[in-house]
Amino acid sequence: MKQHGATALTLAGLILLAGCTTPASERAQAPVAVAEVGSFHIGGRQVTLDGLPAKEVRFTPTSPLTRIDPNGEFEVGQMYVQYVRLAPAARRAPYPLLMWHGGGLSGVTWESTPDGRPGWQMFFLRAGHDVYVSDAVERGRASWARYPELYRSEPVFRTKKEAWELFRIGPAGSYQDAAHRSAYPGTQFPVAAFDQFMKQGVPRWLTNDAATEAAYDALVQRVCPCVIMVHSQGSTFAYTLANRYPDKIKAVVGVEPSGALDPDKVDLTPLSRVPLLFVWGDKIAATPRWQGIQAPMKKMIAALKAKGGRADEIDLPARGIAGNSHLMMMDANSDQIAALVQDWLVAQGLAGR
Amino acid sequence: MKQHGATALTLAGLILLAGCTTPASERAQAPVAVAEVGSFHIGGRQVTLDGLPAKEVRFTPTSPLTRIDPNGEFEVGQMYVQYVRLAPAARRAPYPLLMWHGGGLSGVTWESTPDGRPGWQMFFLRAGHDVYVSDAVERGRASWARYPELYRSEPVFRTKKEAWELFRIGPAGSYQDAAHRSAYPGTQFPVAAFDQFMKQGVPRWLTNDAATEAAYDALVQRVCPCVIMVHSQGSTFAYTLANRYPDKIKAVVGVEPSGALDPDKVDLTPLSRVPLLFVWGDKIAATPRWQGIQAPMKKMIAALKAKGGRADEIDLPARGIAGNSHLMMMDANSDQIAALVQDWLVAQGLAGR
Repeated sequence: MKQHGATALTLAGLILLAGCTTPASERAQAPVAVAEVGSFHIGGRQVTLDGLPAKEVRFTPTSPLTRIDPNGEFEVGQMYVQYVRLAPAARRAPYPLLMWHGGGLSGVTWESTPDGRPGWQMFFLRAGHDVYVSDAVERGRASWARYPELYRSEPVFRTKKEAWELFRIGPAGSYQDAAHRSAYPGTQFPVAAFDQFMKQGVPRWLTNDAATEAAYDALVQRVCPCVIMVHSQGSTFAYTLANRYPDKIKAVVGVEPSGALDPDKVDLTPLSRVPLLFVWGDKIAATPRWQGIQAPMKKMIAALKAKGGRADEIDLPARGIAGNSHLMMMDANSDQIAALVQDWLVAQGLAGR
Repeated sequence: MKQHGATALTLAGLILLAGCTTPASERAQAPVAVAEVGSFHIGGRQVTLDGLPAKEVRFTPTSPLTRIDPNGEFEVGQMYVQYVRLAPAARRAPYPLLMWHGGGLSGVTWESTPDGRPGWQMFFLRAGHDVYVSDAVERGRASWARYPELYRSEPVFRTKKEAWELFRIGPAGSYQDAAHRSAYPGTQFPVAAFDQFMKQGVPRWLTNDAATEAAYDALVQRVCPCVIMVHSQGSTFAYTLANRYPDKIKAVVGVEPSGALDPDKVDLTPLSRVPLLFVWGDKIAATPRWQGIQAPMKKMIAALKAKGGRADEIDLPARGIAGNSHLMMMDANSDQIAALVQDWLVAQGLAGR
């Protein structure tokens, strides 16, 4: 049954859903008006395998042997992108927000935290951004290809010990085994959910950077102008592409970015026109490996500032926010840090209140 | 700034968003009021690897060799689940809808179609269902584990030729190579997007059924009572679990389900209490391989009916709907078929208008 007053009331409801007249505190649990949830793969190419021997396999334990010919045509090198687009009345940011994950991880990084709280995907949706969460080439729903025929190396699987120490949940040497591991006192990481976190880890190759960059490039062509939020190992791709397309990439938020461009090798003039934010957690100064990771980034930041670029750093412990791990989007105070990022985006004119 | 009229107006807006007073045709493009988008991993266990040799690898082409110890603790056997929960006022179904994919595929099956139209995930969200789209063990964001140390076999990668013919886009022998392939005249599959579809394929193992069933079991414990929609190879797990938990699983919608329970080996009495729908596309009768896949399902259906169970079949060509492939949720008339499924759910009291 059609009601004549429906359109006006719907619009009023949408405006209220969008939170235009409600403070952020009331918005936190309010519904979000979503126009579409969807996904696509982008990048990649066809490859053909031939000359491999056929195999006999059983598709179930009780079925007869079936001959499988592994030769033929495949798609490789694509990445996966899932978007949540807001209704126009709910959108309060001029550009979509692309969330790129780090090494050995997938877009799940940005979804619910391992202990089940809403993640940054949801935070930035509520804050009025269209959000695109992706899985880079070889990760998660992007799929992966045979090795060594197509990928040139074996994958690397991250152990719990490596993750615990590399992500600064505890110091080097603090992880003996799952029954004997000690976190930093006061860590913000939800330690009881560490094993749950490890379920989201994915294998990683070390020989796919060119394909990954090509797929990200195709994504930028398709979706941008945009803002990129990037974690850790994904940052090399984000800075490379922002330096290539400074007019398409309106800002890069680096969440403990680990891959810098070297100003002695790359002309960073285009990148110096892109506003950059760097967010650093706790215990970096106390961790030689992280000092080593951070040093090239500090060099890049200094070079960009020398060119007049905006390269703002939020050093959380220096602001009195202690205990954040490398996985600050999963930490107990994840919303507090997201709010600092959102404030910075607002200051750049890239988000609304 | 707080407004006193806000709550009432928001509720009015939500009710309208929920479509309670608008016909389905107007609802199609209306925003959906979403309470939360989130995800979790479920199932799995810790395993420990030891005795493997260390490797020397380069993390980037220019970085020094780094020694990697592959031994340690890992999580294996988990699956990935992403949910979109509607605002209460937008929900018109009593139970969440779980969407399980088929072999060599992931939850992407249910998202946007390869040619970019909204998929069944979006259709059933708009129809008022909370929707849980998952990636089974070893697929997509569920991640996978080393073989042969943890998984007992090598994975299988599906060629384009196999997909083209197995999914009945063209008949057996119709695919020579990407430049020489012919589809069935009148196919509903978006043939121009076939290569795009192939980007969503993922490797498949043939030795993980026990772990997959265990993870699905854990999902049912966590999320159900529920309705399960399942495609192709996922159906073995759906029917097994519905037979185990007939009070938790309120219905199973089988979209060309390919794995039946054998009534000569399994007591189907519990399953006979669960309403089942089977949807069949075109060209099955003309395809010996599909006749072979369908025959055990027909046997199961007959056995359930003999027990007084509800096992309804929608044979699309028999209804005058021609040209559907095995991937009917991606076909050009995907919304038409989704609407038939939704009608059936309404008739079972499992969905609202």
